[in-house]
Amino acid sequence: MLARLGFDAVTLDMQHGFHSTESVLRGIAGVALAGKPAIVRIPVGRFDMASRALDMGAAAVIAPMINDVDDARAFAAATKFPPLGERSWGPHRAMQLSRHGDVSTFMRTADRETLSFAMIETRKAFDRLNDILDVDGIDGVFVGPADFSIAWSEGAKVDPRLEEMMPAIEAIASAAKKSGKLAALYAADPGLVGRYRQMGYGLVATGSDTESLVLGATSLLERAKAE
Amino acid sequence: MLARLGFDAVTLDMQHGFHSTESVLRGIAGVALAGKPAIVRIPVGRFDMASRALDMGAAAVIAPMINDVDDARAFAAATKFPPLGERSWGPHRAMQLSRHGDVSTFMRTADRETLSFAMIETRKAFDRLNDILDVDGIDGVFVGPADFSIAWSEGAKVDPRLEEMMPAIEAIASAAKKSGKLAALYAADPGLVGRYRQMGYGLVATGSDTESLVLGATSLLERAKAE
Amino acid sequence: MLARLGFDAVTLDMQHGFHSTESVLRGIAGVALAGKPAIVRIPVGRFDMASRALDMGAAAVIAPMINDVDDARAFAAATKFPPLGERSWGPHRAMQLSRHGDVSTFMRTADRETLSFAMIETRKAFDRLNDILDVDGIDGVFVGPADFSIAWSEGAKVDPRLEEMMPAIEAIASAAKKSGKLAALYAADPGLVGRYRQMGYGLVATGSDTESLVLGATSLLERAKAE
Amino acid sequence: MLARLGFDAVTLDMQHGFHSTESVLRGIAGVALAGKPAIVRIPVGRFDMASRALDMGAAAVIAPMINDVDDARAFAAATKFPPLGERSWGPHRAMQLSRHGDVSTFMRTADRETLSFAMIETRKAFDRLNDILDVDGIDGVFVGPADFSIAWSEGAKVDPRLEEMMPAIEAIASAAKKSGKLAALYAADPGLVGRYRQMGYGLVATGSDTESLVLGATSLLERAKAE
Amino acid sequence: MLARLGFDAVTLDMQHGFHSTESVLRGIAGVALAGKPAIVRIPVGRFDMASRALDMGAAAVIAPMINDVDDARAFAAATKFPPLGERSWGPHRAMQLSRHGDVSTFMRTADRETLSFAMIETRKAFDRLNDILDVDGIDGVFVGPADFSIAWSEGAKVDPRLEEMMPAIEAIASAAKKSGKLAALYAADPGLVGRYRQMGYGLVATGSDTESLVLGATSLLERAKAE
Amino acid sequence: MLARLGFDAVTLDMQHGFHSTESVLRGIAGVALAGKPAIVRIPVGRFDMASRALDMGAAAVIAPMINDVDDARAFAAATKFPPLGERSWGPHRAMQLSRHGDVSTFMRTADRETLSFAMIETRKAFDRLNDILDVDGIDGVFVGPADFSIAWSEGAKVDPRLEEMMPAIEAIASAAKKSGKLAALYAADPGLVGRYRQMGYGLVATGSDTESLVLGATSLLERAKAE
Ligand SMILES: [Mg+2]
Ligand SMILES: [Mg+2]
Ligand SMILES: [Mg+2]
Ligand SMILES: [Mg+2]
Ligand SMILES: [Mg+2]
Ligand SMILES: [Mg+2]
Repeated sequence: MLARLGFDAVTLDMQHGFHSTESVLRGIAGVALAGKPAIVRIPVGRFDMASRALDMGAAAVIAPMINDVDDARAFAAATKFPPLGERSWGPHRAMQLSRHGDVSTFMRTADRETLSFAMIETRKAFDRLNDILDVDGIDGVFVGPADFSIAWSEGAKVDPRLEEMMPAIEAIASAAKKSGKLAALYAADPGLVGRYRQMGYGLVATGSDTESLVLGATSLLERAKAE
Repeated sequence: MLARLGFDAVTLDMQHGFHSTESVLRGIAGVALAGKPAIVRIPVGRFDMASRALDMGAAAVIAPMINDVDDARAFAAATKFPPLGERSWGPHRAMQLSRHGDVSTFMRTADRETLSFAMIETRKAFDRLNDILDVDGIDGVFVGPADFSIAWSEGAKVDPRLEEMMPAIEAIASAAKKSGKLAALYAADPGLVGRYRQMGYGLVATGSDTESLVLGATSLLERAKAE
Repeated sequence: MLARLGFDAVTLDMQHGFHSTESVLRGIAGVALAGKPAIVRIPVGRFDMASRALDMGAAAVIAPMINDVDDARAFAAATKFPPLGERSWGPHRAMQLSRHGDVSTFMRTADRETLSFAMIETRKAFDRLNDILDVDGIDGVFVGPADFSIAWSEGAKVDPRLEEMMPAIEAIASAAKKSGKLAALYAADPGLVGRYRQMGYGLVATGSDTESLVLGATSLLERAKAE
Repeated sequence: MLARLGFDAVTLDMQHGFHSTESVLRGIAGVALAGKPAIVRIPVGRFDMASRALDMGAAAVIAPMINDVDDARAFAAATKFPPLGERSWGPHRAMQLSRHGDVSTFMRTADRETLSFAMIETRKAFDRLNDILDVDGIDGVFVGPADFSIAWSEGAKVDPRLEEMMPAIEAIASAAKKSGKLAALYAADPGLVGRYRQMGYGLVATGSDTESLVLGATSLLERAKAE
Repeated sequence: MLARLGFDAVTLDMQHGFHSTESVLRGIAGVALAGKPAIVRIPVGRFDMASRALDMGAAAVIAPMINDVDDARAFAAATKFPPLGERSWGPHRAMQLSRHGDVSTFMRTADRETLSFAMIETRKAFDRLNDILDVDGIDGVFVGPADFSIAWSEGAKVDPRLEEMMPAIEAIASAAKKSGKLAALYAADPGLVGRYRQMGYGLVATGSDTESLVLGATSLLERAKAE
Repeated sequence: MLARLGFDAVTLDMQHGFHSTESVLRGIAGVALAGKPAIVRIPVGRFDMASRALDMGAAAVIAPMINDVDDARAFAAATKFPPLGERSWGPHRAMQLSRHGDVSTFMRTADRETLSFAMIETRKAFDRLNDILDVDGIDGVFVGPADFSIAWSEGAKVDPRLEEMMPAIEAIASAAKKSGKLAALYAADPGLVGRYRQMGYGLVATGSDTESLVLGATSLLERAKAE
């Protein structure tokens, strides 16, 4: 029944899914205790939840609609401790799930061991991509092809396979690579995974569930941490 | 027992009532499946919940304390798809409840079929009324007479029947009419419903319940959609 | 968008769906305030929730797996006030939603105005059908064809359209009619609605939603109350 | 940070932990999507939750305080489909998580692929151990040493390491083995794991978390399913 | 604003109020940390919640509709440790809130320091009163005058002030006193408090709140523990 | 067991603890009904929850990371009625818990009887301390020594006892005193309470619980209200 051992991460989606504060705070532990990274996608602008998700032991946070440098900075501020950001101290659950017993050690390594992904899904974000990538504390970008297709077609269509936008999507991966950051993406169509990987996307999320949990290949996360 | 068939909509109140993310995400479906519009009043500034409410099938969202054009634009951005706004794609539940099976059709009609009401309840908002009404994506204004009375009396009283403010309340309906937008209002005192309708208010909410659900006459919503 | 006005009731499913105590207590009001009967299907044997659902304003309760007279009596005890049953007094929310302002009047009419449906979905229940129907306080039976098909095929199949069981399903409607009780049924296949109605089923639930809310035609509930 | 890949299962504890219906229904998916078995410990006598946990995709259910054959039969009835038990059909989420696309195939294999553990933690249960083990549908026993020590000391002590009870604990593993069922146990003291394994316990749960999630070695579950 | 210092306990009502498992598990700590006893009224027959409430730090549990000796024994079994009852070990939160650091000491004193109240609210219960009072582990009886009035009037009225039942209510206090157990009661009408105290009721609950929290004078609880 | 009568307030922590909207809305009443002030610490920037906490009857709200005058003004706006702030009218639960029956009286006194604490926990906040203290509607400052130590050590350590920052912490109390506002602080180490009191801190919170509820001495709150 549970022949799913190939999956590498679980995303708890608070943007479009049914997850609430309650279910995310609880759900992270289940995934983490199962030995996999728990990733939380916060609602638009809810950077308070980004901090809380990390306190509870999330391995990564995805913030939708990071459209300019101010958005990116606010997101990084909420997810990285000073001096990099302004994350407040209180990672009670995360420490229990961690291998770092000492508080100062935990704090100094937390910024590196958890990842902040900025979603790039509008033309505005695309235009400011390099500036967003330059923000300290942003570990990578995450492309949302459905929203990107709406933006690219100026509201005419929702089509995560929209051919016209593919060069732009490839350009995002290249820019990320150049700036030494991660490139990730949701692939609604599993048939596109190979193509996205060729473009340079290290983390390609492919699954989805009625409760809006999404599975992703995290080999790239591991690599990032190892560096 | 259920001789309430005259009521036309149910508002789930997250601003002053007991509703949480969880109960709103679940409660919308119950109302929608009962064949009535589910309306959600979000907490002040929580535009992330405006998007989520629409994703879950809400027919309208009411945003309290829209006091200037920036507030109005942020609200419209969260509730309307591009190019009008910046609403992110993910209306899984809303599509199941909808009659539009095709995603692109759903998207193109969603902005018209769901309504965004900006609450006008401070002097500041009153002073900027026309600018707020001019914001694309704001479908109507909603007057909160209790807060308006506090503002009008400069903090001296809470009195939703305050006579001195009635000319201003009438002016709001007129301004809405002139700009081709909807005018709605909570009527704490059912005896005032007739007067408000004469002022030009199409949607007058009258009931309330310990769980802070509010009933409104939605004939006006239907009319808006028909246009 | 909300062209669903033909639907007549909403069932909040706690047996197989995602509903919890919290979401049911809240969700009932939304449906009731929309002017439609809220029906709650409780988990197997959770008669405490049957009482609570009625306290909160449910119009009917469906109890799964009522397999003998003891089950039926326990269910009736939880849903009907003395002397008929042992329902405890505390219908705070139900009274607010009701048209009966006086507590004693409310209590005396509540047993008649809310309905208790016993699910018949095993061979054991079928064998004891007349005894179950004879229990005072059981207002009707509700057939679950999926479970009934498992029982009828002795665990070989799940098939709500199983032809071999149709005579038994028809016999249930006849027995209900003879005892002056209601006959209801979930029709997974809308194509079977006509056939079930011909068998004598007054309430045929047909819809379903990912959150496990189910729609039913309640004309029969209205009739029952009018008698 | 997440170097916990050696763990094999996650238990969501509703008996003594903070888990509620809501958090369990949601939490199971997170664990299952992480590729590990989600196990739910239900509150005493709450067999309705045993069924719901399986509907949501739990791989196993642990029922505390199974003290006699009636308890064991009621538990098995709730967790196994007919003709073995009386589990009701509705595994919507479990099917999505499963590899069996066809409903009848899913049903026929579900009883074998999910496990029902009866907790043996009183003298009464110990005295009736063989009868409990003989109940069809009970896949194994699960020893709770803390409660067992209270019982064994007649209420004098709580001591999960109580030496006097160790022969009885060993006898439980032997009896399980003889009847071809699984033997599992919570080991509060990791130092005792080896000793328990020598006694014949295949699944020894060892971890615990403030939210009462417990980790176990599930190699035995896999073996059970393979047979 | 908070001039309520005279109140002595807070009851979280799961029978007729809005409380769920979630809100009770959380709410107990708030009351206990405020230095007052948290009392939980469970739903009818939900003895699993009685145990969980004590695990979380409740000072007392009230079980409605304890109508015979079997009900009383099942309630006592869930709330008292062996050898008196069958309460399972796991009082993690209660121990944190307690002054007993050692587990065995905590366990041996817990039965005495927490109270189990059986609600007497039907004629059947009244007829078996002495037998119920004789059950070890039942610390007192709690009268529900609203339900008792329905029973006494054979379903004719709900009237917590019903004069005809007053001699019976007085007899309950006398019987409790004779058996050395506590007598408690909800007084819907504060004007009756003096009369109830004269009858011998030590704990008379008088307040109520829309969220169904009830306040009671607990001087009697303190006395019970001091003995 | 409940010898905790010396404690004076209960803080429900939504920043780093497990509390959600749901549990806070419910939990406030339990604490308030126990006769103690309920204090809510909101997540960073979630001023919507500050308003809701007061609507539900909280006696005080603590806002973390108030780093400049804009933050302070936004916080005061959410917690004080006009003309002081922009708090919206809807204190249904707070009025039930209050001694002020008349709405206008309640409104006019609410701003004085509930307290807004701005957390000072960064260098930026320290540099702007006097400006923050000057904001009308900010009743006091609350020092978070863990975050302050991270800021003071420029991210090198988390140490709430950091000696180097103690002069700054003393300066905060002095500044508060000079501006006629309250000074409060969390003391992770109870041994430091005396020292903090000597510095001029009136409210020193000392306890903590796994659910992140924190106890504080509220003598200072009472004094503030009496003035
Ligand atoms: Mg997107
Ligand atoms: Mg308002
Ligand atoms: Mg069924
Ligand atoms: Mg146990
Ligand atoms: Mg009662
Ligand atoms: Mg802090």
